[in-house]
Amino acid sequence: MSWAVRDSCFDKQLVTTNGNKYMLGNGYMGYRGTLEEFGKSELVAVTLAGLYDKAGEKWREPVNAPNGLWTKIVCNGQPLSVHEHEPSSHVQKLNIRSAIHHRSTEYGMTDGGTLTFTADRFVSQDNLHLLVSKCSIRSTQDCQIVIETGIDVDVWDINGPHLYGQKVQLQGDALLSSSTSGELNIPVVVAEKAVFNFGEQQLDEGTAIRRISFEARAGETYEWFKYVTVYTGLDVSGPESEAVKSVHAAETLGYDELLKAHRQLWEERWSLSDVMIEGDEDAQFALRYSIYQLLIIAPTASEKVSIPARGLSGQVYKGAVFWDTEMFMLPFFLHTDPKVARNLMMYRIHTLDGARRKAAEYGFLGAFYAWESQDTGDDACTLFNVNDVFTGRPMRTYFRDKQVHISGDVVHGIWKYVQFTGDESLLTSGGAEVIWECARFFYSYAYYNPVKERFEILDVTGPDEYHERVNNNAFTNALVKETLEIALRTAELLQDKYPEVYSQLSSVFSEGPFLTEFKAMLDRFYVPQPDPASLLIEQFDRYFTLEDVGLPELKYRVLNKNEYLGGGNGLATTTTILKQADVVLMLNLFKHSFTKEVKQANWEFYEPRTEHGSSLSPCIYALVAADIGSPDWGYPYFMRTATVDLTGESKQYVGDLYIGGTHPAANGGAWMAAVLGFTGLDYDGGTVHIKPSLPKHWQSVELPVTLRGDTFKLRISKDEVTVTTAADYSESLLFSVQGREGKSCAAGESLRLALTETTV
Amino acid sequence: MSWAVRDSCFDKQLVTTNGNKYMLGNGYMGYRGTLEEFGKSELVAVTLAGLYDKAGEKWREPVNAPNGLWTKIVCNGQPLSVHEHEPSSHVQKLNIRSAIHHRSTEYGMTDGGTLTFTADRFVSQDNLHLLVSKCSIRSTQDCQIVIETGIDVDVWDINGPHLYGQKVQLQGDALLSSSTSGELNIPVVVAEKAVFNFGEQQLDEGTAIRRISFEARAGETYEWFKYVTVYTGLDVSGPESEAVKSVHAAETLGYDELLKAHRQLWEERWSLSDVMIEGDEDAQFALRYSIYQLLIIAPTASEKVSIPARGLSGQVYKGAVFWDTEMFMLPFFLHTDPKVARNLMMYRIHTLDGARRKAAEYGFLGAFYAWESQDTGDDACTLFNVNDVFTGRPMRTYFRDKQVHISGDVVHGIWKYVQFTGDESLLTSGGAEVIWECARFFYSYAYYNPVKERFEILDVTGPDEYHERVNNNAFTNALVKETLEIALRTAELLQDKYPEVYSQLSSVFSEGPFLTEFKAMLDRFYVPQPDPASLLIEQFDRYFTLEDVGLPELKYRVLNKNEYLGGGNGLATTTTILKQADVVLMLNLFKHSFTKEVKQANWEFYEPRTEHGSSLSPCIYALVAADIGSPDWGYPYFMRTATVDLTGESKQYVGDLYIGGTHPAANGGAWMAAVLGFTGLDYDGGTVHIKPSLPKHWQSVELPVTLRGDTFKLRISKDEVTVTTAADYSESLLFSVQGREGKSCAAGESLRLALTETTV
Repeated sequence: MSWAVRDSCFDKQLVTTNGNKYMLGNGYMGYRGTLEEFGKSELVAVTLAGLYDKAGEKWREPVNAPNGLWTKIVCNGQPLSVHEHEPSSHVQKLNIRSAIHHRSTEYGMTDGGTLTFTADRFVSQDNLHLLVSKCSIRSTQDCQIVIETGIDVDVWDINGPHLYGQKVQLQGDALLSSSTSGELNIPVVVAEKAVFNFGEQQLDEGTAIRRISFEARAGETYEWFKYVTVYTGLDVSGPESEAVKSVHAAETLGYDELLKAHRQLWEERWSLSDVMIEGDEDAQFALRYSIYQLLIIAPTASEKVSIPARGLSGQVYKGAVFWDTEMFMLPFFLHTDPKVARNLMMYRIHTLDGARRKAAEYGFLGAFYAWESQDTGDDACTLFNVNDVFTGRPMRTYFRDKQVHISGDVVHGIWKYVQFTGDESLLTSGGAEVIWECARFFYSYAYYNPVKERFEILDVTGPDEYHERVNNNAFTNALVKETLEIALRTAELLQDKYPEVYSQLSSVFSEGPFLTEFKAMLDRFYVPQPDPASLLIEQFDRYFTLEDVGLPELKYRVLNKNEYLGGGNGLATTTTILKQADVVLMLNLFKHSFTKEVKQANWEFYEPRTEHGSSLSPCIYALVAADIGSPDWGYPYFMRTATVDLTGESKQYVGDLYIGGTHPAANGGAWMAAVLGFTGLDYDGGTVHIKPSLPKHWQSVELPVTLRGDTFKLRISKDEVTVTTAADYSESLLFSVQGREGKSCAAGESLRLALTETTV
Repeated sequence: MSWAVRDSCFDKQLVTTNGNKYMLGNGYMGYRGTLEEFGKSELVAVTLAGLYDKAGEKWREPVNAPNGLWTKIVCNGQPLSVHEHEPSSHVQKLNIRSAIHHRSTEYGMTDGGTLTFTADRFVSQDNLHLLVSKCSIRSTQDCQIVIETGIDVDVWDINGPHLYGQKVQLQGDALLSSSTSGELNIPVVVAEKAVFNFGEQQLDEGTAIRRISFEARAGETYEWFKYVTVYTGLDVSGPESEAVKSVHAAETLGYDELLKAHRQLWEERWSLSDVMIEGDEDAQFALRYSIYQLLIIAPTASEKVSIPARGLSGQVYKGAVFWDTEMFMLPFFLHTDPKVARNLMMYRIHTLDGARRKAAEYGFLGAFYAWESQDTGDDACTLFNVNDVFTGRPMRTYFRDKQVHISGDVVHGIWKYVQFTGDESLLTSGGAEVIWECARFFYSYAYYNPVKERFEILDVTGPDEYHERVNNNAFTNALVKETLEIALRTAELLQDKYPEVYSQLSSVFSEGPFLTEFKAMLDRFYVPQPDPASLLIEQFDRYFTLEDVGLPELKYRVLNKNEYLGGGNGLATTTTILKQADVVLMLNLFKHSFTKEVKQANWEFYEPRTEHGSSLSPCIYALVAADIGSPDWGYPYFMRTATVDLTGESKQYVGDLYIGGTHPAANGGAWMAAVLGFTGLDYDGGTVHIKPSLPKHWQSVELPVTLRGDTFKLRISKDEVTVTTAADYSESLLFSVQGREGKSCAAGESLRLALTETTV
């Protein structure tokens, strides 16, 4: 089975998409899959998680650090780079098993010989501040070589510049670049060491570039190493000394040791997360690649950051965290790496004050989480999020002020974390406050309908953003209901187990609205239900009165291929066409509340009406297709989701604004579709339910799962499910297949559960 | 003082606007101010009130009847018409005192002589089905004349054809055109008699055109008469025989007698409505002309029709009745012709079922009146009311479904009628049901905010249509509050005076929501109030957070002069720019609830932000300016309103769609500004308050007023108010100036009340 992504020639057209496809990262920083000689015009980016900066009146975005791995070869006075000198052969390769990037480029020389430049690099998983590379050149002819390498301080920015007071120093033999961010004055430091055992080194005064000159002899390989560390003022109080210390330590350990530690950690990560599919190599690779993309951006060491919608692949989407994290990425970490899951949810706890400020701004109580969240939790989303292609004017959209489900998504994530890990400390560390503040927000957002005698949620935008400002969106209302339930259960749990914490926390809420009001609202709360005859759930009030136009007809009406289908005058706005799964997503989240017939009826109704204008959409159709026993309806949606960052077929530019990047929500969605969909894994807090629904050509799926501190292996084949536990397994879980009674499994044993052909 | 509108030459460019400016009408039908030889291309229209028809999938509109006054002169074989033969002199004149249209056209002849064609016509006020004309020709040379005259059955329609099965018969010497409307199969019949005492008459088989040929002798005047009657199946069961009978009767009476009766009635009308302004001839004429426009469309004889937004000037605006009637026209009739006022309100009672259907369609209780009301009260307004100039696509607007204040406007009108006339029979004839059903509608539309502990009105469009779907629009909420109050007061009144009627009517409402709920809602109902510091009333929730852009800057942003400023992506939508008076209109309607300071602060705030995209807007600024003692701020707005149909400066076409026509709401607004504004007349149901606020160059205003069955004369000069009553005056009213104690006036006497200089 292959673990490599690979391109075997250089194609200028692919520089940008390869920047995403060949990404490295460790959650602290992302390093785009660009080549060593590339600079800002090729969108090189060392994107730092959690450090944001605002330049002038432009929107805030993450800061890109100077590129300490920059390297360029000059041979006989002629610069060698893929742009300036077409290579005679070129390979770019990413080993996703160990997260190592490799490039090897052979250039023809004027006298008929060839020169080969290779470079391996990795973003250390062991030391999150460390970038390491090993390079070599080998020529078939004697030649004069100059290697230019150092720190490229001419950083690519979308809305920059962000770094000011750039200063380059030599500290011993380490190059040190220091600058500070413009808005918050945070130091950003890059230290670089280059280790050459040949040639003569020169450093031009005031630059961060070394020149190593030597006569290369034919047939001989010249190899060198680079160690680069990145620190900011958010990490330590003295980032300069820390960077220098750290880069010296790296050199002392040396490339091989560093790589070994890095590899080791990646082996461990895969051992906890790899999903093996028998019978479908394409799916196997795409799913692994999706998991890889999640692993390189997972914040393993910080609870102050979460995962932005475009990961760490640049400054796209303002580096902002959306609902994507809770709804599309969290499930993967909940099943494989609960520490990361905890960090993700702690980020929401740390940004609670921002959510409180947003609620207050709109006149509500409690916490209204940011639609686009950065460091403080204040909303980075503007009221004019899309440009009208017909007039060039910014268009009023209602992402920021009406997509209230975000607060429910956060609560859902926190509760799932507690349920999956049993770690109630999240609740006592701020989680309970978040939950109650979100419930208060919804209580203040809700209105009581005196005729229908029920609470309703009015004037919202649901996941289907083509229909803004709707009433009683089924998805939103279902999440509000869950929020109220969780708020009450949280209170019960704390009262029961942590009475002192409860009494201290709840005193803040004593003026209400609190539990009494939540209960009253819950008792009379309206969530749209399936119509008894058609079984359909109306996406929102009066959705069924919209023009039922059909997607081909809608597309036929398009006048400009870039026109936005939603917004005030959008083509979809007045029709039943949806941007993305909305009711169907609700059916997936609350799968136990609906019959197969209801799920199927709604899948069949909404699927042809879904435009999939969001990469979050297809995986949901795959999940629910599997749930209703029609995995083959879902398979194309799964593959579309799992390959989104391999094909690079998403939109890269709007005008000259780069909007490309990776799609971690789709990556997480691919994992969900495979594991929660096709293998039908479903943990309810006590029992692990498995209801397989494999695509017909899949022979088996095998994967590790971590729940409540226990890790076990699951193997799902056509005719049986095997659970294998380790020697230290706590024996606390029950395993049930196809709805049958749950069985326990002894530590260090295998439990085989036969599957019968059933109609789901 | 002039009573004539006059053009002294023929200008092709003015044919369309003169069609409005020279309108005749009697409430049963309108006759556009076109010339005798004109046909459909000049927008000739005999528009019938209350008869609507839908052709195919196009929108419903009023039916135009065939033109029985059509006449054309042929001299020596050459057709004479203003288009085909440029006149050597031409006068078109409208006498607004007697509602008589006159034209006189002199054509040069090839041999140097001239031929003069004159025509007088009127739409009889005495027999509403009757059109009468007197024509003459006189030539300075002998010549061969053919007069073509009869019924032009080739009717102009915007969305036609509407008339089918056209049949022409000769009944005795009357021509009879019969056809039926396409949708409802209603017969439309026109009978014509032409009385010539010269020439030889010929009638082509199968046509409705007579040819009268004769040798005209130089210097001799040849005069003839035409009588035309129009009947439909809505008027009588046998419209053909009725039309013939009626046209014969008209001929028997003859032109002079008919004119006398017509004039007599117009004298009576003016005696009850003319407003005389001393010191401002322009204002005098414009105001009289405005009153004329109201009189020619007033439904004096039918309670099944109301006044459409463009009067009877064609099929424009679907011939639909808007809130314009109650809010801008009703006050004139309440003070001058309570019978017409009653008919207008009875129309709303007759269309209650349509309003109930509309409420039910949207899932509400009670009565939600049509935004665009025709014969049944079902809403003629579409959801896509404006075309996007940038894409040519219909644009979703929220006139139909969100402009809920219409139900409050209707209730307001009914209550004002009862208050002004003392005629409580309107309540027992359906008015109470309308009021209660509208209150029920608002009860079901309202939501209770559990945190703020109040009922609110969400998601509406107020008078300022540039801001759709807003919450707690001050104007709307104030009207909803008034509706609830009126609903309760109506119940009290009926319980007290008509207990049997009350018990019968209220039984229908026994299942509620009814009085208990109305009371509960009223007790906790939110109406936006002035900010204590700024005194400003926010037009709706969060209006003050919109971009405060300034009108010149907004206009600078316009890319296409026809672009709509409201709607989803409109330029005004996201700014504080308003289409028309909204808060300021509310301050006028509820003038006793706010201090002068509040009115002034809001006038000064909203006035520069008002784009006056509606002809309903300027008069309100004039009214409130007068109210706060700054009549000269209001005077330009008054003049703009009073001259709108004289200047014809409003938009006439959108593409090839005619949208011109008269502006009865502005006509009524001009009257309101002059009488309720500058003279400060304000009847509260017991006392007639007068608080003059005359523009500085006005010496005095004199006008008749009818209240509670009494008619009296008011004269307001700079230093006193004189009330003069007739011998049969009931002595029931009190008269108060400048807020002083009210005094009574004896029958047949004059009461002089001195004015002092005050700060208002």
